[in-house]
Order: sequence, then C-alpha cells, then structure tokens
Amino acid sequence: MKRLTLTTLLLASLPAFAQKATPDNLVQYAHPLVGTAKMGHTYPGATVPFGMVQLSPDTDTISYEQNGKYNPKVYEYCAGYQYADKTIVGFSHTHFSGTGHSDLGDFLVMPTTGPLQLNPGTADQPEKGFRSRFSHQNEVAEPAYYRVKLDDHNILAELTASNRVGMHQYTFPQSEQAHIILDLTAGIYNYPDKNVWTFVRVENDSLITGYRQTNGWARTRVEYFAMAFSKPFASYGSRNYSKRQVYRGFWGRFDQAHNFPELAGEQLRLYFDFKTTANEKIKVKMALSGVSTEGALRNLRAEIPGWDFEAVKRQGQAQWQEQLGKVVIESPKKVDKENFYTAMYHAALSPTTYMDVDGQYRGLDQNIHQAKGFTNYTTFSLWDTYRALHPLFNLLEPQRNADMVQSMLAHYDQSTLHMLPIWSHYANENWCMIGYHSVPVIADAVLKGVVPADQAQRALDACVTTAHQQRYDGIGYYEQLGYVPEDKSGSSVSKTLEYAFDDWCIAQLAKKLGKNDIAAEFSKRAQNWQNVYDSRIGFMRPRLADGSFRQRFDVLSTNDQGFIEGNAWNYSLYVPQDPAGLVAKMGGEKKFVPHLDSLFTMHLPDEFFAETEDITRDGIIGNYVHGNEPAHHAAYLYNWTSQPYKTQARVRMILPKMYRPTPDGLGGNDDCGQMSAWYIFSSLGFYPVAPGSPEYALGSPAVYGATINLENGKTFRIKVKSQSDKNVYVKEARLNGQKLTRPFLAYDDVVKGGELVFTMAGKP
Amino acid sequence: MKRLTLTTLLLASLPAFAQKATPDNLVQYAHPLVGTAKMGHTYPGATVPFGMVQLSPDTDTISYEQNGKYNPKVYEYCAGYQYADKTIVGFSHTHFSGTGHSDLGDFLVMPTTGPLQLNPGTADQPEKGFRSRFSHQNEVAEPAYYRVKLDDHNILAELTASNRVGMHQYTFPQSEQAHIILDLTAGIYNYPDKNVWTFVRVENDSLITGYRQTNGWARTRVEYFAMAFSKPFASYGSRNYSKRQVYRGFWGRFDQAHNFPELAGEQLRLYFDFKTTANEKIKVKMALSGVSTEGALRNLRAEIPGWDFEAVKRQGQAQWQEQLGKVVIESPKKVDKENFYTAMYHAALSPTTYMDVDGQYRGLDQNIHQAKGFTNYTTFSLWDTYRALHPLFNLLEPQRNADMVQSMLAHYDQSTLHMLPIWSHYANENWCMIGYHSVPVIADAVLKGVVPADQAQRALDACVTTAHQQRYDGIGYYEQLGYVPEDKSGSSVSKTLEYAFDDWCIAQLAKKLGKNDIAAEFSKRAQNWQNVYDSRIGFMRPRLADGSFRQRFDVLSTNDQGFIEGNAWNYSLYVPQDPAGLVAKMGGEKKFVPHLDSLFTMHLPDEFFAETEDITRDGIIGNYVHGNEPAHHAAYLYNWTSQPYKTQARVRMILPKMYRPTPDGLGGNDDCGQMSAWYIFSSLGFYPVAPGSPEYALGSPAVYGATINLENGKTFRIKVKSQSDKNVYVKEARLNGQKLTRPFLAYDDVVKGGELVFTMAGKP
Repeated sequence: MKRLTLTTLLLASLPAFAQKATPDNLVQYAHPLVGTAKMGHTYPGATVPFGMVQLSPDTDTISYEQNGKYNPKVYEYCAGYQYADKTIVGFSHTHFSGTGHSDLGDFLVMPTTGPLQLNPGTADQPEKGFRSRFSHQNEVAEPAYYRVKLDDHNILAELTASNRVGMHQYTFPQSEQAHIILDLTAGIYNYPDKNVWTFVRVENDSLITGYRQTNGWARTRVEYFAMAFSKPFASYGSRNYSKRQVYRGFWGRFDQAHNFPELAGEQLRLYFDFKTTANEKIKVKMALSGVSTEGALRNLRAEIPGWDFEAVKRQGQAQWQEQLGKVVIESPKKVDKENFYTAMYHAALSPTTYMDVDGQYRGLDQNIHQAKGFTNYTTFSLWDTYRALHPLFNLLEPQRNADMVQSMLAHYDQSTLHMLPIWSHYANENWCMIGYHSVPVIADAVLKGVVPADQAQRALDACVTTAHQQRYDGIGYYEQLGYVPEDKSGSSVSKTLEYAFDDWCIAQLAKKLGKNDIAAEFSKRAQNWQNVYDSRIGFMRPRLADGSFRQRFDVLSTNDQGFIEGNAWNYSLYVPQDPAGLVAKMGGEKKFVPHLDSLFTMHLPDEFFAETEDITRDGIIGNYVHGNEPAHHAAYLYNWTSQPYKTQARVRMILPKMYRPTPDGLGGNDDCGQMSAWYIFSSLGFYPVAPGSPEYALGSPAVYGATINLENGKTFRIKVKSQSDKNVYVKEARLNGQKLTRPFLAYDDVVKGGELVFTMAGKP
Repeated sequence: MKRLTLTTLLLASLPAFAQKATPDNLVQYAHPLVGTAKMGHTYPGATVPFGMVQLSPDTDTISYEQNGKYNPKVYEYCAGYQYADKTIVGFSHTHFSGTGHSDLGDFLVMPTTGPLQLNPGTADQPEKGFRSRFSHQNEVAEPAYYRVKLDDHNILAELTASNRVGMHQYTFPQSEQAHIILDLTAGIYNYPDKNVWTFVRVENDSLITGYRQTNGWARTRVEYFAMAFSKPFASYGSRNYSKRQVYRGFWGRFDQAHNFPELAGEQLRLYFDFKTTANEKIKVKMALSGVSTEGALRNLRAEIPGWDFEAVKRQGQAQWQEQLGKVVIESPKKVDKENFYTAMYHAALSPTTYMDVDGQYRGLDQNIHQAKGFTNYTTFSLWDTYRALHPLFNLLEPQRNADMVQSMLAHYDQSTLHMLPIWSHYANENWCMIGYHSVPVIADAVLKGVVPADQAQRALDACVTTAHQQRYDGIGYYEQLGYVPEDKSGSSVSKTLEYAFDDWCIAQLAKKLGKNDIAAEFSKRAQNWQNVYDSRIGFMRPRLADGSFRQRFDVLSTNDQGFIEGNAWNYSLYVPQDPAGLVAKMGGEKKFVPHLDSLFTMHLPDEFFAETEDITRDGIIGNYVHGNEPAHHAAYLYNWTSQPYKTQARVRMILPKMYRPTPDGLGGNDDCGQMSAWYIFSSLGFYPVAPGSPEYALGSPAVYGATINLENGKTFRIKVKSQSDKNVYVKEARLNGQKLTRPFLAYDDVVKGGELVFTMAGKP
C-alpha cells in the first residue's frame, strides 16, 4: 500500500518537462587534445569528471630556471604538454587544466626498452635519455583514454583512470631489457629545489608506496602514492640526483642503489626491470592520496582492485557519457557538437576531488580531516571560475557545487587568516590573482537554494570575515577610502571594482538572511566602483591615497595602469552588479554604446599584445580580450541598453572565433573551465552576467536546440526556430509559450523545467 | 559475598615479603647534572620518566660542518649541553641521554630583553646574539625541574615538564623590549640542510602550531608542536635564513616578516614581543607530537590545561619519587645514594614515549597508527641497552618493558626489510651499531613471562625473520660460512660474536615454544663464536672469506681490527651465552683467568685512547673499557671459574671509579641508561650476564641494604652484613635463609619476593 501511494505521488508530481534526453555517444565529440597547442594549457590525458588523477603525457620537463636564469618557456608547460613537441618524457598523474601558472606533474612514469637510461634526455636528442619520439598519427585522446606509440622504445602506451587511480597499459616488444621508470625529480613548473623531500618503500615485488613533498605554487604540498605492477619486477634500483648533501648516517652499509626497498631523498629516480615477450602487456596502477600512503593503498583497492584495463576505460567513458549528457544539443554541424562537448568536457575537469575514499583529506592546516556529508574538492581558480563555471554547476549539478561550497567553508575554518580561498590547491592557498571571489560562488549558491539553508548563516559569516581582512591586498585602504589607492597597492582599480562586486554579493546574501545591517554595509561598499570612475575622461582610472586620480594613464596598456589581465577599456565595463548604473554613470546610452562598440571594433597595434599574458592574437577581437576573463560579461551589456541585438551579434561572432575543435582551437588559457563555461552558456543562449543575481542575460543561441537534464529530474528544453549562421538575431523568445518582454531569463524558471523557444532572424 | 571472597583471597595470597619500602625524598639524590661534563652526554633539563619531552638548556648549537669541514666538536654536543660552557643558547625540547651520536634539539626557545637579536651569537661574544652568559651558581637541576639565571637578559628561567608538554616560566625584569625567540633553525648534530622543512601557524595571539622536518640521524623525521603563551604577545615576526631559493609565488603581497600568521620555509626564526613589569612571569607550554599539530594540541590540553608551574613541577617530581622508589637502598654514605638514584634517574629516561594521548603514533612506514593496548616507545639504543637496561626493566617495571617489546614488534610489522629495530628513533631506523639486539630484549622478556604468552609466537617469528635478513650487515656470509668474513664486512668479529649470542637467545625462545627445528638451527648458530677464535694465539680474530685468519692483527688496537668499540682483548671475552665454553676454549681456567686479570691490570700507553671514541681516560681501567659496552659483563666472568671472589673485587673497584655524583662523574656515554643500569645491578650485588638466561651472576653489593618494590606488589630485600668499603668479598649469601652454593641468583626467585642476605668480609 505504501509503495503504491508513493508511486502515485511520484507520478502525480511528475513535471511537464521531465523527458530526459538520452543521446547517443557524446564521448566521441569531446576532444581532450583541444587547447593543447599554444596557450590553451589543457592536457590530453585520461581523467574522469572532477577526478583526483589526471594521467597525461608530458612532452617536456621545463625547469623554471635554465643556466641560472628564468626560463620563459616554463609557462608554456602549465599542463605538461605542447602539441608542437615531438617527444614524450613520460606520463605523470596530476595536471591543471588551462591554468596560467602551474604546479603538479607528480610521479612521472615512463616505459623503456634497451639499456637503462635514467636521465630524460632532451627534445633534440631524445635517444640520449629515456624520453621517446612520437607522432600524432599514433596518438588517440578520448575522455578517460589516451594512447600513443613510443617510437624509440617500440612500446604502445595506453592510459585510463578512475577518480583516484591512474592505470597504464604498456604493450612491450620482446626484450631482455624492458624497464619502467618512476621519476620523482620530474614535475611541472619545476625549479631547483622545488622538491622538498621524497620517500619510497618497495613493499614487495610488485607494489611500491611513497610520497613527494614540494615547495612550489603550493608552498607546502605533499602527495602520496601507491603503485602496483601487474607483473613482478625482476630487479629494481634508484639513483639520487640531489646536489644537496644528504645525510646518510649508517645507511652506507646498504647498497641503496640496487634492490633496496627503503629510499628517501630530495631527487630520486627509480627503475624497475622486466623481461618481456613480444606484445606482452605490463600494467601499472598508480593511486594517489593527499593523506598518506595508507590512504593511497585504500583508494587503490577500492577503485581498481583488478587488472582489467578495458573495464576501467569503459567505466570512465560511461561516467563521461553521463556527464556530457547533462545537456543534449541539436545541430546539423558536427563542429558545433565537437565544440560544445569539448567545452562540457573541459568544464568538468576541475575543481578536483581531494579526499580519499574513506572521506579523509588534508586541510589547509596540514592536519587530516574527515569530510562529513560532503566530497572535498581542491583547485579553486576562483578569479576565473566564479564568473560562469560555478553558475554552470548551479544549473547542471547543484549537489556538486554545494560540496564545493562546503570545501571552501572548510578551508575558511582551517585558515589562520580567517579567509575563504582565493586560489587554493592541495591544502594550500597560493594567493593568485585578486578579489575574494569565493564570495560570489558561495552567495550565488546560497541564493539559488543550492546550499542547504542551515549552512547559510555560516556562509555569510565566512564571506563577511573574509571581506574584513584588512591586511589582505588593500582591503584596509578600501575600507578607509572607498577604493584601493594605486600608490599603496597595485592593480588598484581592478581590485576596487572586483571587491565592489563581491560586496554586492554579500549584500544580496545578507538581505536574504534578514541581516539588514550587513546588507546596508555591503550595499554601500558595492557602490565603491564609482570612486574609481573618472567622469572627466569616462574611464575607470587609478586613484592615489590623497584622493587624486593618477596623472600617468594609458587606457589601452595593461602594464602598470591599475589593472590586471586587462586594460582600462575592458575593465571600465566591470560593474556586473549594476550595468544600468554604469550606463548612467558613463553618460547614458549615447556615450556608453559607442564605448562598448569600440571595444569590439577598434584596431590595436601588435605591440599591445606583447604585454598581454596567456592569450594568443586569436584570443582578441579588436580590444576585446576573450582570452582573459575581465570582459567575459561585456558582450552581454547591450542588454541594459536599447540595443540588445548587438549582444546577440557579438556573441555569435565570438563563439566560432574563440572556440574551434582543434589543438590550437582555444583563444587563451581555458582557466579551469571558465572559458568553456562561457561557451556552454553562450551557445545555449544565455549567460550569468552577475552571479548572485536571480537572472541570466539572454544572448543568441548557437545550437539548433538543446535539452538540459536537470539534477532534480526535470528538463529545460531550448528550441531554436529559423536557426542559421546568418540568423544571429533573436526575433522573439517565448518561455513556456509566454513571450519574454525583457532580454533576461530567471534561474528559477529554468530549474523548474520548461521550454524556451527562440525564433531567429537575419536582421535585428 | 563475592567481594568478601575476593578480599579474603587477596589477603590469603599476600606474600611474605610484601612490605613496600616507602622512603623519604629520593628526588634530592638524583642529579641531572651528572654526566654533563666531558663524554657523559647527559642533559640537565626537565623530564618525567620515559617522557616524550626533554626540555633542557643547550649551551651550543654546533654544526656538523664548520667552514665546510667536519667539526669534531659536534660529538661533544650530543645532549646539547657541556658543563664547561659559559653561555646558554636556549632551551630545546628533545634530547637523547648519553648517546654517542645524535639528533633532536627541537624547538629552541630563548627569552631575551633589549633590542631584538635573531642570531644566536657565539660563545666568545654572547652579547652579539640572543644567547646569554650564565653561572653554575645560579643553576639548579633536579628531576623534572631546571632553573638558571640568564645574566645577559636578567631573566630567571625555570623549566618543568609533563610527559608530552614542556613548561617554561620566565621571570622578566621591567622591560619595554622583552622577547621570546623560537629558533627553528637550531638543532643538535645540525649540518647544512638538515632542516628539510618547517611550518608555523600563529593560531591566535597566544598560541602557535607547526612542525619541523629533518633529514638527520633519523632520515625522515617530523616533529609537531603546539606552543601556548600565558600572556598574549604584543607583536611577532620571523626571518627566513635559508640560502635555498624558496619559491614565494604570490606570497610577496604579504609582509611575512611582521605579524603574519602563516609561515613555512627551511630556516625560520620567530620572535614574540612583550612589555613586562618587574618580576613579571611569562609562561610557555610547548606540547609535542609525532603525529600532527592537532595531536600536539590534544596533548597540550590533556596534560597541562592550566598555568600552574609549581603544580606541574610537583606532579613531575612525584612521578620521579615513585620511579626512584622502585628500589630503596640503605647506606650511611650520601654519595652512594647520589650515585644510585642518579643511576635510577638516568635509567628511566629512555626509551621515550612516542605516542599521543589518544594512542596515535607515527610508524616506520610514516603512516599514523593506533596503538592498541600498549604505549608506543621510541629511542631504542639496543646495542647498548639489551645488556642490562632492558633486563632491569624486566625486574623493576615489566609492564613497561612489555610495551617496549610491543613497540619493537610494531616496528617489525612496518618494516619493508622485515627487521626488528637495530637503533631506532622517531619512526626511523638509523642502523647504528651492529647485531640484532632486539632479539635478546624480546627473548628475555618472553622467557621471563613479561610479554603475554599470546605474543610469544609472533615475537619468535620476528626474531627469526630478522636473523635471516641476508642483506643486512654480513648475515648472508654468516649463514654461509658460520662467521662474517672481514674482507666482506668490517667489524666482522664483533658481528659474529654478537650474532651468535643473539642466535642463542632465539634458540632459548624457540625451545620454550617447542619449536625444536628453530631451536636446533639457532643453537648451532650460537656456536659460531668458535669460528672466529684463533686457538694458536688465544684471541678472537678476524677471518677472511677464504677461511684463513687475517695476517695483520693487533690485539690492543680498536682501529680496523675486526671489532667495533672494543679491541680483541675485550671482545675475546664476549660469549655471554656460554662463558664455561669460552673458558674451556681458551685453554681452561689456568689460561683464562690470567687473560681476564690482565684486562684490568695491564698498562696501556696513552696513544691507545686517542682512537677510542666516546670515553674519557677515566672510563678505562687497565685495558678494561667500562665506557664502552662490550666488556660490561667481563668482570662477572670469574663466576665461571673457581675464583668468583675476583668478580667481587673488580665490581667494587669499578663502581666508585666509574660513577661519581659530579658533572664529570661518568666514565663514558651513559648510552641511554645502559651504564646506569650496570651501576644499579652491580651495586645491588648481581648482574644479567646473558639476557635470555634465567639467572643473574652474583657480584658484590655496594649498598648496605636494599628493598626492591616489585610491580607485582611483592618485595625483594637485600641485606648486607659487615658491609664496608674494604669488605668487598662475599663470605656467604643466603636466599630466604638458604645458603647459595653457586654464585648465581634466579630471576624467578627475585620476582616471587624474598630476602637475600650477603655477609661481607675483607678477604676472599
């Protein structure tokens, strides 16, 4: 009886639009190689959605220093792989996706044949080391699967992964001298002494454990591993490359170089010897943990107990099929699906799982914590991802975003500075970029009901305390003067503008919780953008502590002009919390629209790009820099004027220019999925200009139709009539049959399921 | 009814000799300053019995290198303190007692006044740094209490400790510039880059936490701390002295030198500023943990929640009173009590507690383990302590020794080499010295019923597996040839002799467990001492792999003669498992006794001592080297001849020569209590010549009477009739009224309680 009643209720409550789209194979459209050329900084290797392991080939191990000097090429290798390279050094297990700075590259593994070589060799002379030539013809990169032929060793290397375990399958030729190398000296963004310590135990003839501790972008990072071989090694050994005097004590009595099971030091490379028959497969499983080798072993046994490589690959790709299928698009053009699902793929790589299977994780205080009721995540590139990636999570996977908010609040609880994360990874805060953009992520999630209500007050407290941390990056001055003075703290205008936006988010959150005094305080702070606006010239401009605007000023340069990753032209448009107010401030639509137009149409000399980091010439349209984030909302600002059709045109222009399904198809760093999230929203026809707001701004859909399979079981259908490459203008948009009179769409209207019908036209 | 029955039973089973001796203040007789001059290598600071914290002044921070060269003075500072020094650098929290090699010295704290100085200065010019002159007149060292006036800063420093927490009490003068320095660069046996990493968090204005990770004698050691101040500091800061390039990333935006709460780096010194009124006391509590800062905080709160320095001192001294009172001696001479209770004090310093209050500890695998049903200990100086210290524990505190055995077995379980500890400290094996002397400790404890019977088989397995580890220190050759060949593995004779003894222990254990095949195998191995005896010259002598004795041979030298910390003269007597067999092998009593006599009576030239480490001239009598351990049993060997009276005379000669209650009163390193355990046994009139044997050898008591308060509630009384400095010969010994016919005493007869009456005489 009870069961019957329940069924009845379920049927009764079944929403109108609950028809889940169940597409065919979407995995085929997601191309991990996209963005691996030039400045995309993506990696082509194997991972599962938000997985702890990113098992991927590294084509060079560039050191931060070369001959004692800074090596600018180090930035090209943020993801360890550059498509133009001809050799592979090995396969390491942790990679950022699309960052502009870097770290990681842990536990580089390389199979070889022939005489043992323990140095990596160089790209010019790969035969002088263990690295190998390869060809893109012999390379396949799919979600959760990567394959390449290592020409110099005649080995076929295949990679797949579960969340916390990477799995290698090496098909060897017949060889009396087959080796698998584990290079603990290798790493991404390496420099002398980045390794603080490494430790290895050979537990038995087919299992080793250990850790690598580094002082890099993460100041105090330790990653543990457990590495299992499908075949016992015949012998093994190691070499310590440390120049540092390592105290040996009474260890000298052992031959530590050969078959010795207890190793430690700063710079270790290990090798494992085998004899192989023709086409013999040797498999390796590498489990990670931020907690302990015991944790890594537990992860290994829980996730991949056996040796069935194909099964692990199948499971990984099934996870991707489900992940990509959260949005099912329609288009007659394969390129659209490739762009869309590659974006969906890149938008599901980070933040990454940072918790063992038993819920233990390392906290910011370096203690081991137990996650209670949430999955702990790390790699929060928040200056990028607060804009569209976390809003995308609120739409497509609110439960995961709620866990990410819990992870940020745990970070806050563990912070001696009492601050939410700025840019955090692996139990470390790296303080990269500006603002306190945990705030918009958290506020948006709470305001949209994604975070449980009983966490809301705790969330507000964390946001307010963070925003009051006066020692952080000019906040003291900001609170005192209403802006950050450039003579006291650089990039002051960017900081002022972004603090003001974050403050608006706090005000919205406080209002919702009925905290009127906090709402009033932060609503006032949200107005601070006005304090850096120089109405005489119509630009945001650096101001000094004495109240004056700085004399020296170049509205086009990004170099020391009070901005970061943007110039005055772009950043003057950064008031997402109040575009209408900005339009008014800039002298009304008559002055504002030409300024906005010029952003996309003006021609800038090439010198300009020399000083713009992390983007290629392709990443810029006129003066609009899509390759960096500060103007990501800019194309949508026409919606606050009488000419929203220009938003529609700009968006449709940007989409195909900035996103192509080729290795060099990204116009700049993917930035942990922010660039991809922009694509996903914009191609569906709307965008979250201001996280924390209940509305999206409408743009122009590039798809021919789409179904969003919501986590609550409902669906939101997007139909596009008269779609074509030329019909970029929205003639009409109807939500559930009702014509929309404003170019905006409410979040609530999407998540309750429904249908949005665009009718397109070739003219405004 | 039941209760009544129980009471009746208890009363009925009350032993004849259960009258516990409850002495007056024994703490007054134990002098921590004994052994702090010359080569005793003891420390004078505050600790409780077997405590994790040894909070003690360091008089110099000698580096292993000086101007790029090895600095031989480093050995003098094994315990951080040399009595002859005129300055104190600070107070650190971990110290070995009496070792000949070293490590530790964690978390050096120093209070200062005047302008801040962050370098330690030099002994010659203390005013150029934070160190201070001091005078022994203003110094008091008692068990669990240390006090000294720091002349340069006009500060009275007092120290006390609980098991895991050190407590400082500094009485300041009136000062606008009072500081407390925490020097994380300091350490004992330091050398360049011994610090691997340090990490500090200022949790609030009176609490900091962090860790120090070192690569020293312990290869991979990390010690965590939580440090609480009784008064909030007004300001604080730090300096990083690392020459190594420390990656700073985006940390540069903070002023990390002043009032910044998150610090990390290789070489950090911190300071905390105060303003003090005249005679203001500032107290500091420093809790340690091998597990985590969370563990240190837990230890802090559990052991010393408040700020009552006097109460902590009182509790510490009460623990010592109980510890010292395990044996209550009688003597009209204060010097006897001072020697005896100082020995009892030194014999209760290590092994040290290595487990948090919640039972968590770091294992050899660097994972965190939970101790189930035992207290985990570390600092096992087994080559020294298997001889008399652990046998003393079997007598005075078997439960603690059982826990030590459990700790060793846990180490074995965690060892990839599958070996019991050799010389282990702080979750590391340092491989110091030779043999596998966990074996006699474990065998002795099991055979004497100290270890629960259900652990016996596990213990035997661990001993056998260790003894079969062929890659360790010549065991492969030993198993093949019956001896360690000198041309394959140095110190070969010492190793052969000690392996043979350890093997005899395994045989005894196997016999007890009815494992006859193992017993046979190891009984055979126990005979291997005969294989290095050169009967043509009557000495143990290095043998080569081809079977021949090495030609080059000097029976007096300790340098490259096949021995370690001993010469052929001493080591040829090392067959504790079969002294009768040795006597026979050496040609019977007629030849053996003159050899043994000569050991004590021959005169050696001074050159001899230049090459003998760790002992002073005072540590040698003739050719008998009491300052090192291999001949510790030698004086008792006359018991296996017809002249045991010579044992009695030798023992009574050695006792006052080698032990005096003065800073320079120890003839050599106390070696974690082994030297002191020798004193305790010998002055009571018996000694464990062969741990694993059920018998002690009788000597000559130096006390006038003694009561051993056994852990089982019983007592063993020693009465000495006609005792005097001249009456060193035992005329008669009666056990519970029965005259002893052999100069031996059974362990079982002692622990069941009873009375041993010696009657002394001035002639044999």
